[in-house]
Amino acid sequence: MASQKLPTAGNPIRCKAAVSRKPGEPLVLEEILVAPPCCHEVRIRIICTSLCQSDVTFWKLKDFPGVFPRILGHEAIGVVESVGEDVDEVKEGDMVIPIFMSDCGDCADCRSKKSNLCSKLPFKVSPWMPRHETSRFTDLNGEVIYHFLSVSSFSQYTVVDIAHLTKIDPSIPPNRACLLSCGVSTGVGAAWRTANVEAGSTVAIFGLGSIGLAVAEGARLCGATRIIGVDMNPNKFEIGKTFGVTDFVRAGDPGSKSVSQVINEMTGGGADYCFECVGLASLVREAYSCCRKGWGKTIVLGVDKPGAELSLSSFDVLHSGKILTGCLFGGLKAKSDIPVLLKRYMDKELQLDEFVTHEIKFEDINKAFDLLAEGKCLRCVIWMDK
Amino acid sequence: MASQKLPTAGNPIRCKAAVSRKPGEPLVLEEILVAPPCCHEVRIRIICTSLCQSDVTFWKLKDFPGVFPRILGHEAIGVVESVGEDVDEVKEGDMVIPIFMSDCGDCADCRSKKSNLCSKLPFKVSPWMPRHETSRFTDLNGEVIYHFLSVSSFSQYTVVDIAHLTKIDPSIPPNRACLLSCGVSTGVGAAWRTANVEAGSTVAIFGLGSIGLAVAEGARLCGATRIIGVDMNPNKFEIGKTFGVTDFVRAGDPGSKSVSQVINEMTGGGADYCFECVGLASLVREAYSCCRKGWGKTIVLGVDKPGAELSLSSFDVLHSGKILTGCLFGGLKAKSDIPVLLKRYMDKELQLDEFVTHEIKFEDINKAFDLLAEGKCLRCVIWMDK
Repeated sequence: MASQKLPTAGNPIRCKAAVSRKPGEPLVLEEILVAPPCCHEVRIRIICTSLCQSDVTFWKLKDFPGVFPRILGHEAIGVVESVGEDVDEVKEGDMVIPIFMSDCGDCADCRSKKSNLCSKLPFKVSPWMPRHETSRFTDLNGEVIYHFLSVSSFSQYTVVDIAHLTKIDPSIPPNRACLLSCGVSTGVGAAWRTANVEAGSTVAIFGLGSIGLAVAEGARLCGATRIIGVDMNPNKFEIGKTFGVTDFVRAGDPGSKSVSQVINEMTGGGADYCFECVGLASLVREAYSCCRKGWGKTIVLGVDKPGAELSLSSFDVLHSGKILTGCLFGGLKAKSDIPVLLKRYMDKELQLDEFVTHEIKFEDINKAFDLLAEGKCLRCVIWMDK
Repeated sequence: MASQKLPTAGNPIRCKAAVSRKPGEPLVLEEILVAPPCCHEVRIRIICTSLCQSDVTFWKLKDFPGVFPRILGHEAIGVVESVGEDVDEVKEGDMVIPIFMSDCGDCADCRSKKSNLCSKLPFKVSPWMPRHETSRFTDLNGEVIYHFLSVSSFSQYTVVDIAHLTKIDPSIPPNRACLLSCGVSTGVGAAWRTANVEAGSTVAIFGLGSIGLAVAEGARLCGATRIIGVDMNPNKFEIGKTFGVTDFVRAGDPGSKSVSQVINEMTGGGADYCFECVGLASLVREAYSCCRKGWGKTIVLGVDKPGAELSLSSFDVLHSGKILTGCLFGGLKAKSDIPVLLKRYMDKELQLDEFVTHEIKFEDINKAFDLLAEGKCLRCVIWMDK
């Protein structure tokens, strides 16, 4: 039997997208054209997407790499509509998660167990498709619309390179699976893959936003017995408890002791693992200071301002035996690790439901930005219209 | 049969020591009194000792922690003369190596496989015995002479805490075994224990002094296939080859490229392991820059000035997945790791002979300082008179 193509395959698709036309201004819901996938590319229909802090950062960014008009969104789940040449890994109808990081499977990094930083399509904040460096989006006036993080999920259809797609079990609820596309994976992965948290250990997490809470969830899964959350907002402790946070330290408390002093005292010499999830070099130093000498690891997840410098005492680096590292996407290899995490969700080990605080329709997408700005939301799932 | 004590046991011993009486001035060979060991202490007769750069640093140091009069020396081998109370681990006549780092075997660090930083007797540059914080040395006028790094081996007899002693096989030549007391162990250990260099990997070593050459030797033993030496002195390449250095990059070369650029190009993206053996924060940054993204480790061994700050780009720490760490004594646990290294020497795997460039008599000890200052010497072994 000859393969049966859907009628859209090979042709541009006209669909609705939420276009970011000016920095910081509400996204514009409009009709756009999504070109067919080139070789190694896949066109997918987005089922649902969620808003991540990086979308907001780039939405506000007036200067390059902030570009306009652009389709933001990078945390999502979708169904394959059609595939370009040289794509064997997925076929029409497959359920897929797009990831901002490439996993080509072929380069030295993808072949190594030690790296998740694909060298073939290295991570960069580009306005283009990663392999061909062109756009698949145009508006109805023929003007090019830019891509974002190789995903651009704030559109009913998008085109994603096959190296940026992970095929998943279609039985998993999409409004849970989509969380593994970025934020939750980053936090859980940082505890699981990058830090490799040992059972029975003590963890300190600086910043209890979604990423920090996902680190707690990952540490909980790894069997950490003490998980110390640090945040300026004391209300974070309640939500933190859901994800295994056992102790809370308020940052910015006008007491006489620094956060690192408090944690060093609480733990009798520092936490085994410290995670910086805010994006401040000064906080990395603080985290490093309350990391256990001899074996403590400090893991940087937060994105600081461009050009920021991280300073540590040379004496401490030499004499403490501590380890400093950082990771993107939690050090996960998308194609092999995401299915593991999804299985752990289905086995009722990994908590995902608790991250979804809001669900809205695509036409209300701008509300998601308000909710995140107000600090009321962990993850807001945006359901696309059919 | 009742145990037979040597007649010296329990009494002070009068012997010859090379006393550092004024900063930077020649050591004074004089008679001193060495008190019997207190509990947990051991008095040993030094067979031979060698001069390490840290001896020179503290010999020159005018301000605290530079103190005078002091008996320097911390790289040595000796024979147990008598033991204090509560010492079961060694007995009179045992061959021992004193180590500036404690290995009490009992604290959380010593019990963990991950740390060599004893918490019970933590490393510090103290003028006293580590446990009782008093001196065992007096001159013939009754004046106290200070200790150095818990060893003070520039004396025919010294007292060392049992946590700072490793018993070894007496068949090993003392002028080889003594090298494992500090410098060679630090370098070999950094490659073996701290970095855990994988076979087939690429290593870059900043600074080809004794420590850097010992790192090369450790990396060679671990099966590294490419060992890049970096030094300002091009003559270091020849001696480096003895210890497995395969490539040489001249630092301070007035070319247009930085050392890290050169190494990144040579290796197609950086070395798997970079070791900083000079003690300059700027060089740590350079090493970090030419460390392979995804899995590269930068290990700090060099001792920078007090108060020095190490600065890295926050972006690099987050996006590169590189690891930064440091170690004392190469991350080795003295009591278990030194016997392993000595066995590897006896099995003709580990090279030690090549480090000994000079051997002199105790009465000529000041020559060792000159030789090290002239850069003509890797290790100068000083034989004590009997």
